[in-house]
Amino acid sequence: MRSRRVERVRGWLAEQELGALLVSSAPNVRWLTGFAGEGMLVVDDGTLICTDSRYRVQSCEEAPGIECAAEGGHLEQAIARLEACGAARVGFEAPHLSYASWQKLAEGLGGVTLVPCGDEIRRLRAIKDAGEVKLIERAASVADEAFGRWRGALEPGITEREAALELERLMVLGGAEKPSFGTIMAAGTNGAKPHACPGRRTIDEGDLVVVDWGAQVDGYCSDCTRTLLVGEVGEQQRAIWQAVRAAQLAAIDAAVAGARCADVDAVAREVLRGHGWEKEFSHGLGHGVGLQVHEQPTLSQRSEDVLASGMVVTIEPGVYIDGWGGVRLEELILVTEEAPRVLTHAPYDL
Amino acid sequence: MRSRRVERVRGWLAEQELGALLVSSAPNVRWLTGFAGEGMLVVDDGTLICTDSRYRVQSCEEAPGIECAAEGGHLEQAIARLEACGAARVGFEAPHLSYASWQKLAEGLGGVTLVPCGDEIRRLRAIKDAGEVKLIERAASVADEAFGRWRGALEPGITEREAALELERLMVLGGAEKPSFGTIMAAGTNGAKPHACPGRRTIDEGDLVVVDWGAQVDGYCSDCTRTLLVGEVGEQQRAIWQAVRAAQLAAIDAAVAGARCADVDAVAREVLRGHGWEKEFSHGLGHGVGLQVHEQPTLSQRSEDVLASGMVVTIEPGVYIDGWGGVRLEELILVTEEAPRVLTHAPYDL
Repeated sequence: MRSRRVERVRGWLAEQELGALLVSSAPNVRWLTGFAGEGMLVVDDGTLICTDSRYRVQSCEEAPGIECAAEGGHLEQAIARLEACGAARVGFEAPHLSYASWQKLAEGLGGVTLVPCGDEIRRLRAIKDAGEVKLIERAASVADEAFGRWRGALEPGITEREAALELERLMVLGGAEKPSFGTIMAAGTNGAKPHACPGRRTIDEGDLVVVDWGAQVDGYCSDCTRTLLVGEVGEQQRAIWQAVRAAQLAAIDAAVAGARCADVDAVAREVLRGHGWEKEFSHGLGHGVGLQVHEQPTLSQRSEDVLASGMVVTIEPGVYIDGWGGVRLEELILVTEEAPRVLTHAPYDL
Repeated sequence: MRSRRVERVRGWLAEQELGALLVSSAPNVRWLTGFAGEGMLVVDDGTLICTDSRYRVQSCEEAPGIECAAEGGHLEQAIARLEACGAARVGFEAPHLSYASWQKLAEGLGGVTLVPCGDEIRRLRAIKDAGEVKLIERAASVADEAFGRWRGALEPGITEREAALELERLMVLGGAEKPSFGTIMAAGTNGAKPHACPGRRTIDEGDLVVVDWGAQVDGYCSDCTRTLLVGEVGEQQRAIWQAVRAAQLAAIDAAVAGARCADVDAVAREVLRGHGWEKEFSHGLGHGVGLQVHEQPTLSQRSEDVLASGMVVTIEPGVYIDGWGGVRLEELILVTEEAPRVLTHAPYDL
């Protein structure tokens, strides 16, 4: 599977008339080789992982059969290989190489034409193969099960931080390598911050609590959000919650292969407009998920991406009101030619 | 305190004849403003945080009194401000800005001279003020206390992952925002990988276990390593453990203000050479710790850094043997004019 990915990259390099590519994005290196440590990858007629002594053993284990250099600086080793391979034109990942590293590369490779490339490998990564979908499903199911156990035991009076920690603990005990990102557990007015950090605030009767969590399994992430209603539900809380849920369901229906991501975003926004909450939906509708919890495509008003079969994306509309709180509901879906397959199955409170 | 930091940056800008600086490193933005979300900072005659709607509320809370733009792309907002401020020469952080972002910056700021800067702000961050030392001490003490509780309850048969999770849980319950990095819990032969990820291997009688963990408090990190001896201790295990400990103590003694970092590294290496384990010490001796768990200075054979009063650094020699395992012992110290102050106090097994 991985060698086929490298072949696709080589095919692309041939089209661009590039003799070699320096891959500096860690998830791209992992996707192409399996190696999950720190380092870079040179793709020429062969492949060379450039890392350091800390990762020598790990590289052999995770990327068996792939040559590994671990006796110097990552970039210095890559420069030596790129020089030795004799390519006249060498591509590099412009979004993932610092200006300072580019300077070193240019100094080290006099005579070679350095060609800034975009996010071609990330673009390839947007469409998942069957093995990748299986891992994301497993991650989602670990996260779902942990949530179910956690929700049943949730007692008012616990702090956001303790609650987040317990959910993360259940995920790891249930088979996650780790949470796929820092869990968001935002009670009451904290819910107005879409990316709030769990703090010392307690979760109390009458609170809406935004819970955004995910598991990582074999490097692959899940991502899901529920907004809990602790205790009795107020009228406005219920109304906003239902508007967000309606927006989410409509957007999921619209998320089929061939749909423009901006159009899917617009579907959710339109539903919220009908309820008078359009302005309070202050972020994009969703994003791809895979080895990274945020990857291509982007579902937003300004996105030019188009959905394709095999993409795994979130659908997560929300309403955020300063001084009041927030509601966000998020599912992870697999895009197909027909109705998308929803990969997250945590229960809803309402 | 923070405004004084910004003033120091402005002083440096004046020396370099720069009218403004784009700060794109997240910990540098946090150090200068308090804002811990995603975004960039423009320092000109004023300061502007460039972020997005997700972090609008957080920016007001964490960086009160600092202007914040949250209505577009981070870089686009920064370009608009840099254009408006009228600076003829604008600096940027070359190690922390991607080549692609630099291209956009150059296109957006025609007529302006863009000057690649190094890691000046990170260099300033290397010397901690009293408030920062207090936070690092608090983080170290949270980590120490969690370790003490965890060590007392450790039972053979637990997996590396469960053991790591429990230690992390105790840190968060004890007051950490989160672990300062993914805990390393490497039992038996896994200890040969300095940066091993905790896995499904169980910790058994007779194992050496490398435990490398830290807490984060108000953004500041601690970092500490112990190598546990579970059950009866073999002769070679004890000999290597004691060699590493001797190397560590000698290096701590040598780590005073004015010492060259390469010389302090050499002290540890010399002790290990005396025991016949020099080649198995396959990484540098240590690194600065602060808002990041790895920051300046670097203590290694090739480092050109010099220790100064107020630096907080790790001293962490180790011996790694493929197929056998590893021993690493790490303390966090505050460099002073005299003997360093050791900030970590977790007990040793031997």
